Amino acid sequence: MSEARDPRDAVSTTERRRYLDVALALADRSRAVILDHVRRGFGVEVKPDASLVTDADVAAERAVRERAAELTPEAGVVGEELADTGVGNDLVWVVDPIDGTAEFASHMPVYGTIIGLFLDGRPLVGVIDHPELDLRVHAGFGLGAWKGDRRLLLDDLDIAVPDRALRLGLPARIGFTRRSDDGPTFDRVAARFPNFRTLQTCYTHACTALGALDAAMEWNVRPWDLAATRILVEEAGGAYLDLGHFDHPGTGTVCSALFGRPSAVRRVAEAIA
Amino acid sequence: MSEARDPRDAVSTTERRRYLDVALALADRSRAVILDHVRRGFGVEVKPDASLVTDADVAAERAVRERAAELTPEAGVVGEELADTGVGNDLVWVVDPIDGTAEFASHMPVYGTIIGLFLDGRPLVGVIDHPELDLRVHAGFGLGAWKGDRRLLLDDLDIAVPDRALRLGLPARIGFTRRSDDGPTFDRVAARFPNFRTLQTCYTHACTALGALDAAMEWNVRPWDLAATRILVEEAGGAYLDLGHFDHPGTGTVCSALFGRPSAVRRVAEAIA
Repeated sequence: MSEARDPRDAVSTTERRRYLDVALALADRSRAVILDHVRRGFGVEVKPDASLVTDADVAAERAVRERAAELTPEAGVVGEELADTGVGNDLVWVVDPIDGTAEFASHMPVYGTIIGLFLDGRPLVGVIDHPELDLRVHAGFGLGAWKGDRRLLLDDLDIAVPDRALRLGLPARIGFTRRSDDGPTFDRVAARFPNFRTLQTCYTHACTALGALDAAMEWNVRPWDLAATRILVEEAGGAYLDLGHFDHPGTGTVCSALFGRPSAVRRVAEAIA
Repeated sequence: MSEARDPRDAVSTTERRRYLDVALALADRSRAVILDHVRRGFGVEVKPDASLVTDADVAAERAVRERAAELTPEAGVVGEELADTGVGNDLVWVVDPIDGTAEFASHMPVYGTIIGLFLDGRPLVGVIDHPELDLRVHAGFGLGAWKGDRRLLLDDLDIAVPDRALRLGLPARIGFTRRSDDGPTFDRVAARFPNFRTLQTCYTHACTALGALDAAMEWNVRPWDLAATRILVEEAGGAYLDLGHFDHPGTGTVCSALFGRPSAVRRVAEAIA
C-alpha cells in the first residue's frame, strides 16, 4: 500500500519545536486559570445536553484561545465551550479546557486539559495536563513523547500476559449506548479483558502513553477528547487505530479509537471486530 | 427489630476523639514514608498471587504498626503486608498501607492508605489518605465524616435521576470472576447502571463519602480494602450494606459491600438480588 504524502514532513523541526512550546504555554495558561478558580471558587451550570460547565471551563478556554491567537495567528481553534474559529485553516488547535467537569465540579482532582494542534487533520503536537495532579505528558511529531524530561517509550505487551490480565482503559457501558446501539461490544470486550479501568478520559490517555495501562479505547466521543492522544501514543512507540467517526444528530462529529502497546491494540481490535 | 447493644456506645467521646487523632497520626506517618520513597525511588517485587509489592508498602506498614504500638498498645493490627498481631484483642487496627500498588509502581498518583480501627468488629474510626493527591477523608463513630474541616453530608439521590445516570463505583468484571463465578452479576449491574466508574478502591470510597459518586460496591475484596468505608459512609449519612463474606481458599477472608446515598444503595441492591 503506498502511503499518501504526510504534510507534517514539510514542517521543519524548528517549527515543530516552536508549536510544541506554544502547546505547553497554552497548557500553562489553562492550568493557571483553573487553579485560580479552584482557590477562589466557581459557578456551575447544566448544559442543554445535561452535562456540566463551570466558570473555569469557559475562562480557561477563553484564556487558551487568546494566547493561541497571539502566538499562532495562523491557526484556527475548535474547543468544547466556545464557537469555532478558522476551522478551514491548515493549522487548527483542538482544545478541551476541562475534561472531567463533573469531577472538577465535585472538587475531586482527577480532571485535565487536553490540547492538540492539527495540520490538515494530522496531529502535530499534543499535551494532556492535570493541574491538581501536577501530571503532564506532551509530544510532537518526530520529537518524541515526554513526561517532563523523561522520554516515554512503550514496550510491547509480553505475549505471556493473558487477556484477563491486560490492563485496558474502557469507557463505561453508557458510552456504547448513548450515541449508538453497541452495548454488546462493551459486553464482549469486558468479558474478554475483564481487568479494565473506567477512569477520566484525560487520565486514561495519559496512563496509556505512560504504559500504566496497556491499551485504551474511546467510543463515539467528541474530537477534543482525542485531541492529544494519537501524537502521544504514536511518538511513544505505541499503536493508534482509528475506529471511525460519524455525524451524530444533535451532537456533531463523534469518533472512536483504540490505542496503546501495539500487540495489546491488536488483541483488543480482534474482540471489537 | 431490637438491635444488639453496640459496644461503641460504651466508648466515651473523649476516647473516640483520641482514637481518631491516632488514626490521623498513622495516616501522616504512612504518607511521610510513602512520599519519601517516591522521592528516593523504590524496589518492586511480584507476590505469589501475582500482585505487586514495593519497598514503600512494607516500610509504610511497618511505620504505621510501630506508631500504633506506641500510641495504642491495647490494639491488635491486621495489615496487607505483615503478620497479624493481637487479632483477639477488643480493638484491632486494619491497615492497607498502599491500596493501588500497581498505580504507585507505575509512578501514577491515584493510590492511597486505608486505616480503620474496629471494636469487637465494629468500625470506630477510619481514614483514607491519598498522599500525592493531598486528599484525605476521615470519620469517627458519632463524630461525623470530614474532609479537613468540612463536614461531609450525603444528600439522598434525587428520585428524578434515572438509573442510567446514577454514578456508580463498580469493580472491573475480573473482580466478579477471580474468586467466584459472578460474571452475570457484573453484566446485570453494568447494564442497569451503565454510568459507572472503575477507579482505584481508595479513591472510589473517598469519592462516595464525598458524594462525587452516588454509590459504590466491592465484590470479594480483602478486609483492609473496606477498613475505613463503613464508618466514613455511615457518618456522612449514607447507607452501608454488608453483602457477606467467606473464606476463599488460598486467599483468606473476602468481603462484599454496597454503600453510598441511601436510595442509590437501595436501587443497586435490587439489581444484585
